[in-house]
Amino acid sequence: MNAIGFSETDESKKTVDVNSDLGESFGVWSMGDDEAILSCVSSANVACGYHAGDPSIMKRTVALCASRGVAIGGHVSFPDLLGFGRRNMSCDPDEVYDYCLYQIGALSAFCRAGGVSLDHVKAHGALYNQAAKDAKLARAVAAAARDGGVSALLGLAGSEFEAAARDAGLSFASEVFADRAYSSDGSLLPRSLEGAVLHDVALVAKRAVTMVTEGRVETADGAEIKLRPDSICLHGDAREAVDMALAVRRALEEAGVTIAPARRRFSR
Amino acid sequence: MNAIGFSETDESKKTVDVNSDLGESFGVWSMGDDEAILSCVSSANVACGYHAGDPSIMKRTVALCASRGVAIGGHVSFPDLLGFGRRNMSCDPDEVYDYCLYQIGALSAFCRAGGVSLDHVKAHGALYNQAAKDAKLARAVAAAARDGGVSALLGLAGSEFEAAARDAGLSFASEVFADRAYSSDGSLLPRSLEGAVLHDVALVAKRAVTMVTEGRVETADGAEIKLRPDSICLHGDAREAVDMALAVRRALEEAGVTIAPARRRFSR
Amino acid sequence: MNAIGFSETDESKKTVDVNSDLGESFGVWSMGDDEAILSCVSSANVACGYHAGDPSIMKRTVALCASRGVAIGGHVSFPDLLGFGRRNMSCDPDEVYDYCLYQIGALSAFCRAGGVSLDHVKAHGALYNQAAKDAKLARAVAAAARDGGVSALLGLAGSEFEAAARDAGLSFASEVFADRAYSSDGSLLPRSLEGAVLHDVALVAKRAVTMVTEGRVETADGAEIKLRPDSICLHGDAREAVDMALAVRRALEEAGVTIAPARRRFSR
Amino acid sequence: MNAIGFSETDESKKTVDVNSDLGESFGVWSMGDDEAILSCVSSANVACGYHAGDPSIMKRTVALCASRGVAIGGHVSFPDLLGFGRRNMSCDPDEVYDYCLYQIGALSAFCRAGGVSLDHVKAHGALYNQAAKDAKLARAVAAAARDGGVSALLGLAGSEFEAAARDAGLSFASEVFADRAYSSDGSLLPRSLEGAVLHDVALVAKRAVTMVTEGRVETADGAEIKLRPDSICLHGDAREAVDMALAVRRALEEAGVTIAPARRRFSR
Repeated sequence: MNAIGFSETDESKKTVDVNSDLGESFGVWSMGDDEAILSCVSSANVACGYHAGDPSIMKRTVALCASRGVAIGGHVSFPDLLGFGRRNMSCDPDEVYDYCLYQIGALSAFCRAGGVSLDHVKAHGALYNQAAKDAKLARAVAAAARDGGVSALLGLAGSEFEAAARDAGLSFASEVFADRAYSSDGSLLPRSLEGAVLHDVALVAKRAVTMVTEGRVETADGAEIKLRPDSICLHGDAREAVDMALAVRRALEEAGVTIAPARRRFSR
Repeated sequence: MNAIGFSETDESKKTVDVNSDLGESFGVWSMGDDEAILSCVSSANVACGYHAGDPSIMKRTVALCASRGVAIGGHVSFPDLLGFGRRNMSCDPDEVYDYCLYQIGALSAFCRAGGVSLDHVKAHGALYNQAAKDAKLARAVAAAARDGGVSALLGLAGSEFEAAARDAGLSFASEVFADRAYSSDGSLLPRSLEGAVLHDVALVAKRAVTMVTEGRVETADGAEIKLRPDSICLHGDAREAVDMALAVRRALEEAGVTIAPARRRFSR
Repeated sequence: MNAIGFSETDESKKTVDVNSDLGESFGVWSMGDDEAILSCVSSANVACGYHAGDPSIMKRTVALCASRGVAIGGHVSFPDLLGFGRRNMSCDPDEVYDYCLYQIGALSAFCRAGGVSLDHVKAHGALYNQAAKDAKLARAVAAAARDGGVSALLGLAGSEFEAAARDAGLSFASEVFADRAYSSDGSLLPRSLEGAVLHDVALVAKRAVTMVTEGRVETADGAEIKLRPDSICLHGDAREAVDMALAVRRALEEAGVTIAPARRRFSR
Repeated sequence: MNAIGFSETDESKKTVDVNSDLGESFGVWSMGDDEAILSCVSSANVACGYHAGDPSIMKRTVALCASRGVAIGGHVSFPDLLGFGRRNMSCDPDEVYDYCLYQIGALSAFCRAGGVSLDHVKAHGALYNQAAKDAKLARAVAAAARDGGVSALLGLAGSEFEAAARDAGLSFASEVFADRAYSSDGSLLPRSLEGAVLHDVALVAKRAVTMVTEGRVETADGAEIKLRPDSICLHGDAREAVDMALAVRRALEEAGVTIAPARRRFSR
């Protein structure tokens, strides 16, 4: 009866960004099938040389994203190529700011040269996990994004990234993980626990749809929590990555969800 | 007699940029007395992490330059921290472009965050020497500068950098070395030769003045060549670096030469 | 005239080492199918962290080689992870000695811990190419091998490695490349030239047999040169690497050639 | 009662090792005055390239130690050149073992080439602090020392290094810090606290003598704890490092204490 049949809220429920980590090769070493993943996502988090990626790979990845209209984000990391940025490091907030700004600047130059914008920043691996719970580190990442001319931060819903983004005057895009088990407090089950990562393609695709269209997800212990995802993160490096990405995309489209580049969502 | 007493040409002879390499510390290791050198120069070539420098040092160096009104340039290098970028490497032009753009972008972000512009690019060490004689490498450096949003290239007078800068639509600032012996073809005597580097502070200061005000320098074999320097390069890492920088600055000022930030010279 | 039908010369023609580069993964990045290649070779050149490999990969590779009875060599390189050690660098002989000794020592420790010996040293990529023609660099590699307690050097037949090994009191094992085109002076055709690398598995296998049993190879221009190979190098990183390795091994065995670990050949 | 005035225990109280960190330069960057420090110590902990040091510096440092008869130890670290190995990293025990064995092997080769033995291993910085409290990490360091052919581990008295050394069949040398404030539980006051590091040369020298000859030290809160030091650690990188090292050495000698290379102490 309400004339505003499609409220802004409903509308936003039916549009979502799909992001994945790309450009994670290094030197002669390849990782992932970036071309295949790119046809499934609307945003790419591009490695900047600290955990993966190198200048030549960054140039190629930016060109690939540009040719597909996929929005580009800087995937900033601790300086740990040997450990792929997955090991916690006791860097202080100033160091984190400096490292992030360096990486954001480097990637920005490739975006500029490629005629596209750098749309968001997302922390990688251990930095993502540490900063999600540490306001000072989250603020360092957000400040680097802002000072590097980027207007949006992508991060875990409800984490310290959310407040940090708002404080820095950045848009915040909350992301959910369709292939990860959730605890009832909204955190992800640690990867070390049995069942933390879901490999059933059909199940993951179904979860993605429920998360986006109904704003909820079943937790590992059978309860249910509410979510309001701006973006769904797909892992690009798993064996079944491409199949899962295709399945999630297809399921979302069949459910009437529009998959839109992050930049449009962020700017609302 | 000529009414145009101070012609543009005369005027330009009496203004010169003085540049030096800065920010060449790394991690816990210090190099040079950047504060002292900064009071003598109008332009700084700031290391970008490939031969020296790291994100934290880049931030500090940019802040130091900004506080002194010293123009900032990106000092781009081959990736060779262990060899301080002084060893020739057979990188192809694409790699050189990619490495330079990465470094320029990273430094740009610190300039942006510090509220100052990145005014020029100068190749470092082995890349400087190789590209000075290799048109493809010089063009790769110039293209990276242009694509990174920088408008001037600093390089050896008469080298491949000059044509490369012009072709890329960049200003070119030709630099001379008051403390280096010249061959009669205008090239620098290799450092490995006796007498290639001058250590006599008074002599170097006098040469600097002659180069700028009279446009000439005596070569190692007693001949004389003509020069039209836009910038004088002072080495910041020698033992006598600060004394020499002070002496050169004082001598130029006493000779009525204005020492002006590179950016003003470049934009004429 | 000699009644001893199987003279030492004939005997040696019928035994050959087959070597390949292994352990060239890095961090999370994989390269090659080391397990498959290991069943075809008698010697492995193991990356030591300068162009590929890291401590964990070195440990695993040494264990793999030990379990298969494959002899282990140190594959020493310029410090150039980003370029996979394939780019010429103007390192001086002292630096090359230092870098090689460092890498040899590191790999030695993993061999010691794994209860196996480190049997040979082979230069990798650009260092291989440069030192093959530069006596000072070849001597630096050989001296590092000797000072690191290794008794054999593997290198291009007729190259500077041969004299350097002998001068350092090391055994020298000359290697040939069944899948590379030769010039009539015995050098390899540069990879940049059409036809420099052979991809026809049957042809390469046949060449390997002719090289070993008849001591000759047809050159790119149709002539023939003589060879006396101690070892045949198989490339482990090409797409057809495993097929080619299997084919070469099978062809050699069918021709009655014994494939023996390098250490036995070296010690004769 | 015992007529033997100088019992073995008393005797050992009057001999002590003095150790310091050396070879912490990197590439073109210098740190510390190794020559001056070397005349004060009996053992050197030599950086192995992970937090400082490079192959050329390792060779020079080993030669310096050899010429002074100073015992050499491997100063093993997390891979963190940018942070000088001072930042905690969540490396697992296997990684720590691999990193330590790599570094120990590399340094061993320089010792072997220099005709001296590698006498001990000591963890550096964050690895020292983490492993002192984490039995698994301490065991990883000790196992790498043992598997690398080293027979002694140097570490904080009463820390996990002690048990780890014994379990690995290594000698353990307990070290004390004359220039650091102690808590009453025997741990060092964190550097971040006021008064954690003592700069008064005379006071530090006096503490060193008391620690060695009386086996006790006054804690920060005025209590006293007992110590039985095998080695005194002198910091080589502080501004007053050389003065303090000289003062400590002189004070110990004046008190009749013999300063002996670690290897002799370890072998008792």
